[in-house]
Amino acid sequence: MPELYDVAAIGNAIVDVIAPATDDFLSGQGLTKGAMMLVDAEQSAALYSKMAAGVETSGGSAANTVAGLASFGGKGAFLGKVANDQLGAVFAHDMRAIGAHFDNPPLDGGPSTAVSMINVTPDGQRTMCTYLGASVMFTDYDVDPDVVEGAKIAYLEGYLFDAEAARRAFAKTAALAHGADRMIALTLSDGFVVERHRAGLLGFIESQVDLLFANETEVAALFETDDFDDAIEALRQRVTLAAVTRGAQGSVILTRGERLTVAAEPVEKVVDTTGAGDQYAAGFMFGLARGRPLQQCGKLGSLAAAEVISHYGPRPQVSLKDLAASKGY
Amino acid sequence: MPELYDVAAIGNAIVDVIAPATDDFLSGQGLTKGAMMLVDAEQSAALYSKMAAGVETSGGSAANTVAGLASFGGKGAFLGKVANDQLGAVFAHDMRAIGAHFDNPPLDGGPSTAVSMINVTPDGQRTMCTYLGASVMFTDYDVDPDVVEGAKIAYLEGYLFDAEAARRAFAKTAALAHGADRMIALTLSDGFVVERHRAGLLGFIESQVDLLFANETEVAALFETDDFDDAIEALRQRVTLAAVTRGAQGSVILTRGERLTVAAEPVEKVVDTTGAGDQYAAGFMFGLARGRPLQQCGKLGSLAAAEVISHYGPRPQVSLKDLAASKGY
Repeated sequence: MPELYDVAAIGNAIVDVIAPATDDFLSGQGLTKGAMMLVDAEQSAALYSKMAAGVETSGGSAANTVAGLASFGGKGAFLGKVANDQLGAVFAHDMRAIGAHFDNPPLDGGPSTAVSMINVTPDGQRTMCTYLGASVMFTDYDVDPDVVEGAKIAYLEGYLFDAEAARRAFAKTAALAHGADRMIALTLSDGFVVERHRAGLLGFIESQVDLLFANETEVAALFETDDFDDAIEALRQRVTLAAVTRGAQGSVILTRGERLTVAAEPVEKVVDTTGAGDQYAAGFMFGLARGRPLQQCGKLGSLAAAEVISHYGPRPQVSLKDLAASKGY
Repeated sequence: MPELYDVAAIGNAIVDVIAPATDDFLSGQGLTKGAMMLVDAEQSAALYSKMAAGVETSGGSAANTVAGLASFGGKGAFLGKVANDQLGAVFAHDMRAIGAHFDNPPLDGGPSTAVSMINVTPDGQRTMCTYLGASVMFTDYDVDPDVVEGAKIAYLEGYLFDAEAARRAFAKTAALAHGADRMIALTLSDGFVVERHRAGLLGFIESQVDLLFANETEVAALFETDDFDDAIEALRQRVTLAAVTRGAQGSVILTRGERLTVAAEPVEKVVDTTGAGDQYAAGFMFGLARGRPLQQCGKLGSLAAAEVISHYGPRPQVSLKDLAASKGY
């Protein structure tokens, strides 16, 4: 199988609605700051009616990662489900406009395209309420073997563990990727996702995952410990490669024998943390797919994360390829 | 009739799709830089498929003005037509979220909500291709007398001169406003609009308009002269009050007896000129409705225009009320 893509990513196909909010607004709506909460259509409409005027932009964690990869000059593919509606057309347009492969047909006659309402507080923290809509109709049937087998890394978004059909899609993807001697990467996505699916995630990680992305909160939830060193030691036993992000403290890269520390890239002002983890994964996997040393993979991740948190919106606004070149990374 | 609003604005209800573009892209697509071109549904889809990944945000010239007015702390109402679809819901939400009155029911079973595809070149200039969709279904029937009679200024968007039903709505609005001793303001919107409707616009201006907004290109087109002084003298004969914007050269305010010059507010970097004229009108009318001297009205207009051209998107991203206070305007 020829190598067509650096990364093929499976994730929820989501359009973000981003609006400024106060801490009081979050507590008034019963929202946990910094987390992602799932809402149904009715809750979604009720929350939206109370939010400030916003901006709409294509999002979705793994899709943001594909956008970051493309900005580095990488070749990406995205697998996910939109509905046949206006926001679905926006999502598909944006994915193809960046040069990524996206070929799953939109869903007709079902729920609308997924929307994530992202309230950004003055400290730059994002709090998300997601209506999954059509995105949960993604099944193993939508996993194109040519795409998975043609990608150096198949990247899976942990958020999809909430949907049984998507877990079947993950199993199929892992079988295809490993059959073609490819790598399976997973991001844990969110602490609450880990709480909901700890056993299932641990089983999948041990049996299938070659590269794990997580943040501090997520590894703490996975191993039920607040001790960071304990958590990453437990992680090291289970995967051959992991990258754990720690916000302003940078990231830690783990292999069976190594523990590398990568500093965060300095940021003048944190405007909106949406997409920080997604862009870290983009930079890291671009480096890995192109054979760069692990330390440099981490630096590319930090660079992409720093760019995206310095403005509103979950995807890079400058060429990450040019930015990396200007830094000599 | 009590004064409920500072401004009631009638305009096309449009969602903007904003994306970066090169000059080569514009010429390759046959687009005139800086202008607004109308496209049908098919042309719209063809252009969109070639555009870069974008951001969606509520737009529409007069609606942007209402958003600017609200940001100054003014009370606004908007009259216009969206469709009963996702982008229509976004437009209506954003209008209400800023505290503006917007009560026209969405159109069912007709064309979709209007979309303006805005290609922004590296020099910050915007070139617009607009699919008017549902917005042209706005008629005199949609003009709520309570709203028009309750507003100090009724503000009309020149773009609507393309639709016959909207011209009837303008006539009804002018009759209502003048019957209630209110002011009618009009913006010429675009040079090509003026070319298409010169006679109709001149007749409407002479008989109905108390306050005219235009830029240099538009007054030149209206009076078929490239001499700015000739054009504004011709204008002075026809309206009691006018404000003509000149980009970096600021603006000129005309009354029967006066000609005031207002400097542009300095801008560090022009990112996207979308909405500059709309925001000038917002600041000017906020000042006028609140009884400020004309020179100060112009300064408020310049301040709002400077804010909006310093970032992507047609509406203010900071509180114009706070910004004006910080400048002592």
